[in-house]
Amino acid sequence: MTEAETATLRQRLVDEAVALLASGETAPSLRALARAAGVSAMAPYRHFADKDALMQAVAGRGFEMLGADLTAADEAGMAAGGSRAALIAQGHAYLAFARAHPALYRLMFADHCAAAQTPPASGRAFGVLGLRVTLLAPDNAQAATLACWAMVHGLAVMALDGVMDDVGESAEPVLALLADGIVGGERT
Amino acid sequence: MTEAETATLRQRLVDEAVALLASGETAPSLRALARAAGVSAMAPYRHFADKDALMQAVAGRGFEMLGADLTAADEAGMAAGGSRAALIAQGHAYLAFARAHPALYRLMFADHCAAAQTPPASGRAFGVLGLRVTLLAPDNAQAATLACWAMVHGLAVMALDGVMDDVGESAEPVLALLADGIVGGERT
Repeated sequence: MTEAETATLRQRLVDEAVALLASGETAPSLRALARAAGVSAMAPYRHFADKDALMQAVAGRGFEMLGADLTAADEAGMAAGGSRAALIAQGHAYLAFARAHPALYRLMFADHCAAAQTPPASGRAFGVLGLRVTLLAPDNAQAATLACWAMVHGLAVMALDGVMDDVGESAEPVLALLADGIVGGERT
Repeated sequence: MTEAETATLRQRLVDEAVALLASGETAPSLRALARAAGVSAMAPYRHFADKDALMQAVAGRGFEMLGADLTAADEAGMAAGGSRAALIAQGHAYLAFARAHPALYRLMFADHCAAAQTPPASGRAFGVLGLRVTLLAPDNAQAATLACWAMVHGLAVMALDGVMDDVGESAEPVLALLADGIVGGERT
């Protein structure tokens, strides 16, 4: 197998794992994954030492997807209403991602592959939020970024755990408070 | 068995379940509980239809404990520094509760016995927070209370999931932002 084919198979295995998660399998086995990808049962082991390694790669993919969604929302918000709108749009995009990919979202924050263990991808995703917060609140960027992240993560897990039904609706005034109170964004 | 003895056994079973959770059993069975309480294997069924019913009672107990901790923190904060200090003290007490009782805290927000399903006890616990927020931010109490709750819940689950190591230290500037930005508390 060439290097390019190897890289492609690794990507395909992660694709399949994301799809299996989306279909309701909480933790697809390497065997199930091999079957779904149409490769031999041993093939996944050339790319992942064990299931945890695969799940970390899947979590990393999740953070890439989240980062892309946040970037798109930020750009759309900037175009539509400026930096305050961009921050609020990121908040809505974050919550929408968690609700669209509940199993993947839980995996991304699970013990064995917590955000801390997928630094490049999770760092990029949170960098999108961090950059917007830093531009709006340069004097207090670190605490304000953590405050924003904690709040949307809290809303997201409450929505996934059924603690809150109408997270989309409830989130609107909360995100406005976040933008005005925590980040203190310009009102343009 | 007298009515008082029945009530006492129910309380004891919940006590034992809380203790079993604290000792690392993720979901104690009614059988294990009966053994721990020194009663017959069938005795728990006189009080709980099934394990879910027991777990809901345990979650309710957790919210009672949380409510008591929040109340004590609020009173201490008021005495020490006024209402802004009381709000911040509640935040620290909330995070301390989650870290001291990780399995119980997770159970309290788990799907099958989410906060929404233990309304009297969870309502009382969040009432302690809600009252303080309402006194500080009467015009925007509902959104501000949800914002505070989402933020401390987000910090708590990030701490339990190992996403953040030093939640106690990181929480300080975040709770200050919450008090000044979201709730806008007096500085006394």
